[in-house]
Amino acid sequence: MKATLYEGNKVLSLIDKEVEEPKADEVRIKVAYAGVCGTDMHIYHGMMDKRVDIPLTIGHEMSGTIDAIGEKVTDYKVGDKVVVRPLDDRLAKPSDKGFNHICEELKFIGIDSPGAMQQYWNVPAFTLHKLPETTDLKLAALVEPLSVATHDVRMSELQPGEFAVVLGGGPIGMLIALVAKEMGANVIISEVNESRITKAKEMGLEAVSPVETDLVSYVREKTDGRLADVVFEVAGVQPTLDIMTEIAGIRGRIVMVAIHGQPKPVNLFKFFWKELKLIGARVYEEEDYERSIQLINENNLPFSEMITDVQSLSEIQKIFESIDENPNGMKTLIDCQSI
Amino acid sequence: MKATLYEGNKVLSLIDKEVEEPKADEVRIKVAYAGVCGTDMHIYHGMMDKRVDIPLTIGHEMSGTIDAIGEKVTDYKVGDKVVVRPLDDRLAKPSDKGFNHICEELKFIGIDSPGAMQQYWNVPAFTLHKLPETTDLKLAALVEPLSVATHDVRMSELQPGEFAVVLGGGPIGMLIALVAKEMGANVIISEVNESRITKAKEMGLEAVSPVETDLVSYVREKTDGRLADVVFEVAGVQPTLDIMTEIAGIRGRIVMVAIHGQPKPVNLFKFFWKELKLIGARVYEEEDYERSIQLINENNLPFSEMITDVQSLSEIQKIFESIDENPNGMKTLIDCQSI
Repeated sequence: MKATLYEGNKVLSLIDKEVEEPKADEVRIKVAYAGVCGTDMHIYHGMMDKRVDIPLTIGHEMSGTIDAIGEKVTDYKVGDKVVVRPLDDRLAKPSDKGFNHICEELKFIGIDSPGAMQQYWNVPAFTLHKLPETTDLKLAALVEPLSVATHDVRMSELQPGEFAVVLGGGPIGMLIALVAKEMGANVIISEVNESRITKAKEMGLEAVSPVETDLVSYVREKTDGRLADVVFEVAGVQPTLDIMTEIAGIRGRIVMVAIHGQPKPVNLFKFFWKELKLIGARVYEEEDYERSIQLINENNLPFSEMITDVQSLSEIQKIFESIDENPNGMKTLIDCQSI
Repeated sequence: MKATLYEGNKVLSLIDKEVEEPKADEVRIKVAYAGVCGTDMHIYHGMMDKRVDIPLTIGHEMSGTIDAIGEKVTDYKVGDKVVVRPLDDRLAKPSDKGFNHICEELKFIGIDSPGAMQQYWNVPAFTLHKLPETTDLKLAALVEPLSVATHDVRMSELQPGEFAVVLGGGPIGMLIALVAKEMGANVIISEVNESRITKAKEMGLEAVSPVETDLVSYVREKTDGRLADVVFEVAGVQPTLDIMTEIAGIRGRIVMVAIHGQPKPVNLFKFFWKELKLIGARVYEEEDYERSIQLINENNLPFSEMITDVQSLSEIQKIFESIDENPNGMKTLIDCQSI
């Protein structure tokens, strides 16, 4: 079989290796598609070299079919279509209070242990979610990022008819906007990149540039002065932190999706004054995966337009290089059986 | 009658004026006691001169009895013991979504219009809460600050058995700690002032100095690694902002009680990582007042120890000067009938 390896220093290689038998509690997945996540790009850029055990097969967005099952696995059979929820919470403790998806000793599969960017992948059976037989495996590779979005929207307690602003129109921001709109909210994406604005509009979303439009006035007008009920901070830059507390109305909820590596100035007075809530949201729980699988199968949302490129596994180095060169793309999938 | 006036420039004067008849929808209150709030001290220091229409009678913490009623007032009679909820929300709009206690055009009585530091005070009847006849009017002057505390605790969704840390042991921090403890939570106050630590202990509260004790380790040990379920940020300084995200456990809630005049660095990564919530909380709602009135009447908490000084209305200038000189005091009451 072919596998890829992150070797450090922006190098990804393709290697031959033996197909391994799954352990008793594992399954072997024939990986169909693997998506390239922003985190994979961070790894590629060497920004997570302290955490990643180099050389490592990375990748945590995927779809596939079960190729072999360990002797103790009873709920799955060869041929089942599946996705992996790449959270290894086996070290969860009582002090994690049952929030095992963010437990203190969480291991993220594909970062802390080998991932999906290979032809065959052995994973513990508890990480699996079964897909309906009719599921399109290309779209199913979006289940993992879509679950980030369904989790974020669920954590926001967004209600139908409410007004949401998504700050940042990258892949996660777009998916959040689609999920929020699907549940009956009014949604605006704020994004500075013109080609992403165009992309959002192609997907039926409303998108504005905060450089060209005074976002606060725009939101105020759209909501008869109510301002936003929910704001998703997905961009991770100071201007979005500055504006999030301005566009949120009384008792508005701001979901912190972006990863801010350093402490950043926040207008805490507005939190006090308008009784705002800031809601941290990370990865997903079981129900978010189930909801995403349902959405992918209903296929009422323009998921296929999210997939802007599909490349062969053997092109692994070029794939990462071209994502770097093309900031306008949304989601690149790796066809893991095409070598 | 005697009234006090804030004249600007740290000057408070005592004046004679005519007792006024209440308007149709007003009552005249014979003020029993008025408490001095941190906000009154801010006004005294000239920090709110842009907002305050000088000269003005200030004061919004009080208790009293009804002395006269306007012709349209039906729910109250002369002699009723009352407290005022000093929120004039008559300009509330639909865009305030019913959260009238923090409506955009809220007028705070005692800051934006005349307040309680006088013998007789005319207020709209809708601001009143009736007290049981047996209520101690000295303790009842604590209803307003206590309602800040009951509101903060309610907003935190604190549950019996949960672990709460109150950052800052001033009057509001102490009241929050008492309310949280009364509902069955485990509570620690973190406070740097030794005399406030002593005061907290006298009131049966646990209090530690974060200068002498490593607060994170302390909380971790006390909670078997779970860390705090709820943190109340009442101190309003950078060190408490820095530590609040450290001592909060997974899915912990941090209530922003303090007023931070400028944007301040916040560790947003911890919000993401532990799925923390930041909950802005301001003033109080009707039910918070009712809960506080109940607590004052049950009198199971050491409220009387919160009152560290009672002075005559005629001493108004000295009262403010001595609060300035004595940062260890808790609540000073003004006896508004003693002149």
